[in-house]
Amino acid sequence: MSETVTVAVTGAAGNVCQSLLFRLAAGEPFGPDASIRLQLIEKSESMKALEGLAMELEDCALPLLESVSLHDDPVSGFKDVDFAILTGAKPRTPSMDRMQQLQENPSIFVEQGRALGKVAKETVKTLVVGNPANTNALIAWANARYLPHHQFSALMRLDHNRALGFLARKIGINPLRIKRLTIWGNHASTLFPDASHLRIDGQPIRMALDMNWYRDIMIDQVQQRGAAVISCKGKTSSSSAAQAIIDHLRDWRFGTEEGDFVSMGVLSQGEYGVTPGLFFSYPVTCRKGRAEVVEGLDLDDFCRRMVRVTEEELVRERKAIENLLPMSPELLLARAHSEVA
Amino acid sequence: MSETVTVAVTGAAGNVCQSLLFRLAAGEPFGPDASIRLQLIEKSESMKALEGLAMELEDCALPLLESVSLHDDPVSGFKDVDFAILTGAKPRTPSMDRMQQLQENPSIFVEQGRALGKVAKETVKTLVVGNPANTNALIAWANARYLPHHQFSALMRLDHNRALGFLARKIGINPLRIKRLTIWGNHASTLFPDASHLRIDGQPIRMALDMNWYRDIMIDQVQQRGAAVISCKGKTSSSSAAQAIIDHLRDWRFGTEEGDFVSMGVLSQGEYGVTPGLFFSYPVTCRKGRAEVVEGLDLDDFCRRMVRVTEEELVRERKAIENLLPMSPELLLARAHSEVA
Repeated sequence: MSETVTVAVTGAAGNVCQSLLFRLAAGEPFGPDASIRLQLIEKSESMKALEGLAMELEDCALPLLESVSLHDDPVSGFKDVDFAILTGAKPRTPSMDRMQQLQENPSIFVEQGRALGKVAKETVKTLVVGNPANTNALIAWANARYLPHHQFSALMRLDHNRALGFLARKIGINPLRIKRLTIWGNHASTLFPDASHLRIDGQPIRMALDMNWYRDIMIDQVQQRGAAVISCKGKTSSSSAAQAIIDHLRDWRFGTEEGDFVSMGVLSQGEYGVTPGLFFSYPVTCRKGRAEVVEGLDLDDFCRRMVRVTEEELVRERKAIENLLPMSPELLLARAHSEVA
Repeated sequence: MSETVTVAVTGAAGNVCQSLLFRLAAGEPFGPDASIRLQLIEKSESMKALEGLAMELEDCALPLLESVSLHDDPVSGFKDVDFAILTGAKPRTPSMDRMQQLQENPSIFVEQGRALGKVAKETVKTLVVGNPANTNALIAWANARYLPHHQFSALMRLDHNRALGFLARKIGINPLRIKRLTIWGNHASTLFPDASHLRIDGQPIRMALDMNWYRDIMIDQVQQRGAAVISCKGKTSSSSAAQAIIDHLRDWRFGTEEGDFVSMGVLSQGEYGVTPGLFFSYPVTCRKGRAEVVEGLDLDDFCRRMVRVTEEELVRERKAIENLLPMSPELLLARAHSEVA
């Protein structure tokens, strides 16, 4: 093995991890040359279930899996990690709305952000999955002293893949052939799947796409897909989230494909007129382990209105958790600027 | 894509499949050149949950996944399939013993075997996972007219991987370096993990292995591992079973590594003195899509006694379900011989 990657996962006994951990340990997304150390983090009351899961990991005899350790404390769990995947959050039940989630979840991200800043590697990359993912990413970064914002991102790839799936099925082509899709904004029902920059085999898509279907049906289907899965399964999306996490991490580490971009929630600095200081989903390209917002895309009035709606939701979310940020949004932005410099 | 592989999976909304289906669809174990059609089979009352899972499969936008169809009937579900993975069975609960399972599960394998014989491709390979897996494999094959026995196998790879994991951790080496492990017999607590033919980096292992630990501790740990996982998780092994299914299918399709063998439950024809006509776990090598029992290994008295115990259990299991076989064991064997000829 040329390299060892140490990965911490919170919510490690949860549904997403039943699939995710085994795929991480089998060599996705870090490739066949990197061996893996897993540091699994759970609440104390879930440690027994986590032990069972760790036994199952051992029972795969995976050649890349160097070690598995279990932690009920982020300060030990994040020690020296290269990646932190924060899936731990109270899953949304059919009867729970987003505001309830916003009240119940974010405080654990204060603690986790602090622990990351204290004990993780300086180069640690943190992917926030637990909802409200964008706002939780803001809380985690803001509380992680000394860690630059570009090492934090929120998972939007599930929405991105969902939209790609809808488009590919509608047009009747392989999703691989569709490039330059963007999900803008919040991982929530306000998100905006933007088809206006799409290419199929390098050609603009507008001719191939039924724009009435896209505006009247598809946007809503993507926005409501999580709820539709819950209503069928009685549980939140899990294995599709695991796939999205793998795709996100692989692109973050190895880079996006030439000519394509993907959607990630990253700290806005005013690109496309969005309020700075939100973890906002943008089109990004990844090079050398770093995601950069794709600039210069033309947004028509419809797109701008849609972006505005999801932006306003994120501004409200930030307002609701301001007490969890160690400084004002303005000072946080100044910190972000100094990181870049 | 050079090829399409059509795979039916029963018990498709069950725990094993939450991980398995996504890995099949992502290109394991059939490789990056084969696109996949999934035909998912469940009981009528589980179809809604299965719909949710199918939505999640769509939401991954996987380029190799050509189609997903849902079936509450094996006759439509097995139509034209290349592989059938039979995971559907009542999972064992902490309070359920093996005899209860033996009474409740096997009759669905009569129906599934008949359907396979009727509508699957002539070349279909069937892997039985649902317990009692070995005896269920016998029932399925016996009821599948015209399908030769070598196209049926029972999953023993989970036990095999568990034993490999115990050995690798004890010796302190990568499991990749350990070859020629065998699980003999039944996927049950009588199974016999046989270390006597092991090689590490091509060398016999006996010197490196603490034989007291192996005889007094490890054998029992492997035999009881499934129960230990249940007692931690409150559920049967799922993601580790999915990994084992992938390993089994990959080897069955692409062949075992030169100089190594693996464990599969295949129809015994008297090899190593075992009663013919049982689906019995043997050391096998796979070449050109076919598993062949490795012959000529020396078994000492201890091994022979251990093999006898697990064989006797399988003879009792066959006796208990004889009414589900369409002909006597002797006639079934005559059928098996005529298939080979």
